[in-house]
Amino acid sequence: MAENHPIQFGILGCAEIAKKVSRAIAMAPNSTLYAIGSRSIDKAKRFSAENNFPSGVKIYGSYDEVLEDESVDAVYIPLPTSLHLKWGVMAAEKKKHVLLEKPVALNVGELDEILKACEANGVQFMDATMWMHHPRTEKMKDILSNRSLFGEIRSIHSIFSYMGKNNFLENDIRVKPDLDALGALGDTGWYCIRMSLWALDYELPKTVTAHRGPIFNKLGVNLSCGATLLWEDGKVANIHCSFLSNLNMDVSILGTIGKLRLSDFVIPFEETEASFSLRLADRWLRWDPSPDQNVVLTDLPQEARMVTEFARLAIKIRDFGSNPDKKWDSISRKTQLVVDAVKASMDKGFEPIEIVS
Amino acid sequence: MAENHPIQFGILGCAEIAKKVSRAIAMAPNSTLYAIGSRSIDKAKRFSAENNFPSGVKIYGSYDEVLEDESVDAVYIPLPTSLHLKWGVMAAEKKKHVLLEKPVALNVGELDEILKACEANGVQFMDATMWMHHPRTEKMKDILSNRSLFGEIRSIHSIFSYMGKNNFLENDIRVKPDLDALGALGDTGWYCIRMSLWALDYELPKTVTAHRGPIFNKLGVNLSCGATLLWEDGKVANIHCSFLSNLNMDVSILGTIGKLRLSDFVIPFEETEASFSLRLADRWLRWDPSPDQNVVLTDLPQEARMVTEFARLAIKIRDFGSNPDKKWDSISRKTQLVVDAVKASMDKGFEPIEIVS
Repeated sequence: MAENHPIQFGILGCAEIAKKVSRAIAMAPNSTLYAIGSRSIDKAKRFSAENNFPSGVKIYGSYDEVLEDESVDAVYIPLPTSLHLKWGVMAAEKKKHVLLEKPVALNVGELDEILKACEANGVQFMDATMWMHHPRTEKMKDILSNRSLFGEIRSIHSIFSYMGKNNFLENDIRVKPDLDALGALGDTGWYCIRMSLWALDYELPKTVTAHRGPIFNKLGVNLSCGATLLWEDGKVANIHCSFLSNLNMDVSILGTIGKLRLSDFVIPFEETEASFSLRLADRWLRWDPSPDQNVVLTDLPQEARMVTEFARLAIKIRDFGSNPDKKWDSISRKTQLVVDAVKASMDKGFEPIEIVS
Repeated sequence: MAENHPIQFGILGCAEIAKKVSRAIAMAPNSTLYAIGSRSIDKAKRFSAENNFPSGVKIYGSYDEVLEDESVDAVYIPLPTSLHLKWGVMAAEKKKHVLLEKPVALNVGELDEILKACEANGVQFMDATMWMHHPRTEKMKDILSNRSLFGEIRSIHSIFSYMGKNNFLENDIRVKPDLDALGALGDTGWYCIRMSLWALDYELPKTVTAHRGPIFNKLGVNLSCGATLLWEDGKVANIHCSFLSNLNMDVSILGTIGKLRLSDFVIPFEETEASFSLRLADRWLRWDPSPDQNVVLTDLPQEARMVTEFARLAIKIRDFGSNPDKKWDSISRKTQLVVDAVKASMDKGFEPIEIVS
């Protein structure tokens, strides 16, 4: 295959989120949508038509056929979490690079099997946490990393909630114990945990303690919960995630000199730009000057940037013999470790859970 | 004394915050600054000069003299918390209305003695929680109370932090166990707790559980902590308060239909107006329309409105024979109960503390 040929994506399943990611694949300069597979070929055809897939996109009536297609370089897997282990491992074994929806697995043990398969087969792994790829994220990191500007980070407070309508709370895969058993913790808490780790350069907390008052559905799937992450040196992060309240994506990162906040960390208000507010002034209990609003423009929406970065790594492997970038394995694994710890803390009466990497 | 004669205030002590409140007394249309007392008459003279008090203001070299002055209708007490019991009770016994800085007491037992003295002497009690009196607060309450607009409140997240400079962390009364033993919890956590209770019409939580990772100074005074308040029906409030990070006054109130947030709940960015953002739209994981910014103008800064309301109640008692408005006793007491519970939870290894009113 010629150098600079785009990465050819296959998508496993017709999840709602696949609409956004298929558009992102089309927008990314180094990738193209090649195939989609569903257990029902009719569903795949309908999905293809509804999303105006180019006529050349292959439509398969099974996930296996996508994996068997040698022209597929990479797969995007937006299947329910309980299916990630099987299809993540199989995709890797078929030498497909794996872009995996979050939560990446039901627990870190399953994730380790997926990562092991990716490593054994020399394919790139990445979880589909889109906000990581927004240029705002990089800009914020520059600020947070500048100690003389921002000081030491002391605490991080993040909330990701959205309101599950009745139909959602009964029928969505995200509230079914056999599909997405991690519920709101896995779906929305994932982002808060990632944000907390990201802000602290992926240093793992020492302990994780769930807040009292989580809410579960009748089948035991989490609909709302919170937790405090505590680091060795006293830094803390509070997270709150929920399917039971209006859309909210707040983060406040508090440092000894600066503070940074944004209200749309998971999905920016606008596709072409995103902002955050920063306060660096240090007047004693006085606001003047009030926090600055910083705007960051982006050429592509964050999901297209994610695909671009993933495809860039895949091209390096495919065309230049590079090794996979293991950074993404490590980041996913740490996030999953904390997800698991929040769940364990809830299961064990809100005891603090020590994080052992 | 003629009707509509302003309430004549005495101030006990020359605390930093007394600058703001003495200005507020001057701004309020129904009150006037009549006297200030300090243990050192020189300090009182200096304070009076620095703050351009009118030449007629009486300057006393003791708190007792202020209380003995029969022309003093009301006192504002910004003394260290450990002195509130003594001087709050004495002021009431001298028939002075009592505007008391927060935290109102070291514990609810002490507060009860102050409230009992106020009741026995027929004087008005109010704590000096200024934001309660901003017209923004009333406007937000209208929205939160409108169930068809906002739905049910599910969670409240509040943070109040400011950075204590080295001098503060060593010398300020707020970190001295014999003066303000409640530290950051009493000073900044008070506001977060009040906000949580206010949003839920002062329904007390069922349990309060401190978050792990609070920070104390060598003398055992709290410099940073957090807690989860849990209500009977599953509502939660997370609070975080600190002397160890940059100025932050965030609140997010999440409902089933609406969400409301502001970044300056304790002290508005501007004196003449204040805003909050409101999102009522309910599109599935989509921002459009993005949250509205609501601006509320105010004729007087919130502290002057507080003094005006307090003086209004005092005038009703003094000139019209009304009874004190006990609402303020109740609100203070509930806030203190939760402060006490956070402290108890920290003292008892982060166990949940049941709130018994």
